[in-house]
Amino acid sequence: LNGEFDLIARYFARPAPAGVTGVGDDCALFGVEPGNQVATSTDLLVEGRHFFSDVDPRALGHKALAVNLSDLAAMGARPLGCLLGLSLPSVNHGWLQSFAEGFHALAARSGCPLIGGDTTRSASGIVISVTVFGQVEAGKAMLRSAALPGDDIWVTGTLGAADVALRLLQGSLPEDEHLLRKVRGALEMPEPPLSFAQGLVGLAHAALDISDGLAQDLGHILDESGCGALLRYDELPRDPALQCLDPDLVRQAVLAGGDVYQLCFTATVDRRAAIEALARDARVCATRVGEIQAGSGLRVVDAQGVRIPLEVAGYDHFS
Amino acid sequence: LNGEFDLIARYFARPAPAGVTGVGDDCALFGVEPGNQVATSTDLLVEGRHFFSDVDPRALGHKALAVNLSDLAAMGARPLGCLLGLSLPSVNHGWLQSFAEGFHALAARSGCPLIGGDTTRSASGIVISVTVFGQVEAGKAMLRSAALPGDDIWVTGTLGAADVALRLLQGSLPEDEHLLRKVRGALEMPEPPLSFAQGLVGLAHAALDISDGLAQDLGHILDESGCGALLRYDELPRDPALQCLDPDLVRQAVLAGGDVYQLCFTATVDRRAAIEALARDARVCATRVGEIQAGSGLRVVDAQGVRIPLEVAGYDHFS
Repeated sequence: LNGEFDLIARYFARPAPAGVTGVGDDCALFGVEPGNQVATSTDLLVEGRHFFSDVDPRALGHKALAVNLSDLAAMGARPLGCLLGLSLPSVNHGWLQSFAEGFHALAARSGCPLIGGDTTRSASGIVISVTVFGQVEAGKAMLRSAALPGDDIWVTGTLGAADVALRLLQGSLPEDEHLLRKVRGALEMPEPPLSFAQGLVGLAHAALDISDGLAQDLGHILDESGCGALLRYDELPRDPALQCLDPDLVRQAVLAGGDVYQLCFTATVDRRAAIEALARDARVCATRVGEIQAGSGLRVVDAQGVRIPLEVAGYDHFS
Repeated sequence: LNGEFDLIARYFARPAPAGVTGVGDDCALFGVEPGNQVATSTDLLVEGRHFFSDVDPRALGHKALAVNLSDLAAMGARPLGCLLGLSLPSVNHGWLQSFAEGFHALAARSGCPLIGGDTTRSASGIVISVTVFGQVEAGKAMLRSAALPGDDIWVTGTLGAADVALRLLQGSLPEDEHLLRKVRGALEMPEPPLSFAQGLVGLAHAALDISDGLAQDLGHILDESGCGALLRYDELPRDPALQCLDPDLVRQAVLAGGDVYQLCFTATVDRRAAIEALARDARVCATRVGEIQAGSGLRVVDAQGVRIPLEVAGYDHFS
């Protein structure tokens, strides 16, 4: 156990923030402000499945936390702290140092200190488990089930770059160093719009983070809310690096590409000015891309109003 | 993602308890009573490292949660809920069914509902990540650093059986079906003394759960509290199944055997009667086994007061 403790102490221990008892006891302890609920989420990242073995460990440390912070953003919660589980086939000190730097840089910037964890040797391959905690005013969290017909559908950031980066790194697109340089950051260093998301509480209805592709993720809002939706394809914010690519590829990347870690949310029409002001203050790009409708199902239409078929399915971990 | 959702819904979804928004949104939400802190802990269980590939999946589901509940017990926290991350090389429905049954049976009995999680396909081998949260009155959690000279040292349950079971299953002890039947439950179905532990808050000083061997774990209390301790070997509660085994083996199993998931705690002498009454009410066996002393280091003595050398080290995950 000393080795285990030393790993945590050496690479991951930071001074505990006020009100937190951190790494080193059986549990970490933290407080919650009166009138708030705790929002929590956990994600597993598996080597060879969610990241390449040769990925920059600093980017991996960043992303392991970012994908979880993205879940807090989806509910409008303010981060309180996180736990890290690391299963490693061996101890590589340079790797751990860089991983910890990437993790802590985002943790510090997001007000989400690492307060505990577990390290263990794995049989084969790295597995990373991150759990985040945040707080949100009781009863005010943005739920997937809260969309209403007539709501605008909004998307933050841009779409498609992470998917193109993944295709380039997997070799399913021909090698293109120039393009890879432009899209790689979207895949490896996502930046969930945390403070913008907290400002959305009370303004927006439903929200979620785009992790498995806009079409599929928006489908969850529709299923949970019992609504349909119209999405205007030409209004979807796409990454500028995609403009020279084949239009079919772009459509798949924009509608079905995962790993975005930006928000899709809905809000009534009379909230447009408030949301635009919030986006300006938070330096976030927020774009209206469609509307929630009565009924069911998602229709995507082009600039001429012609329906685009949705044969491009999202990603199923076990299909 | 549908496959992912189906796995969770099919095997793990249960009706959410009051005040909890459970499986299906980006985060789970739960409330904390005023004046309480959240206690949280996470553990990774890796196939081939923490459990055998052919372990009964029902027992594994139980143990994955039990080792985390044990951390809540160590702080005196009352369980509120848990998250489960499962990384599986393939989907085995019978296995998942049994795993979920074992997990949920303990969750229901402990008041610790599963409120969220993540399932993913692994490159190789099963990895289980469980995060638990509980609540404890602010400032009242039992910490490793709270032992004081003069405190009694107490242990709940009995020691040694899990270690002997592990040795039998690993083949480092000769095959003995009769013995294995008697000790296997201690290894595979540990039962942390949760309600007893909550009653200890305000009675005990320091506490932790015995996961890596009594000598090593007690050493953490001594290090954190800046104390020494005397442990009376003959007073340690050992599992009755150990009585016919070689005394050297028994000593290693009792002092250095891990996977116990019972408590070691300290309390002043004037708390003896209250602790004994609490143990009776909770149907827990609690035994005084030594005392905290000024100075540093752990001394273990036999019935004649002769020192027993501590060359039997605990388990180091990365040694």
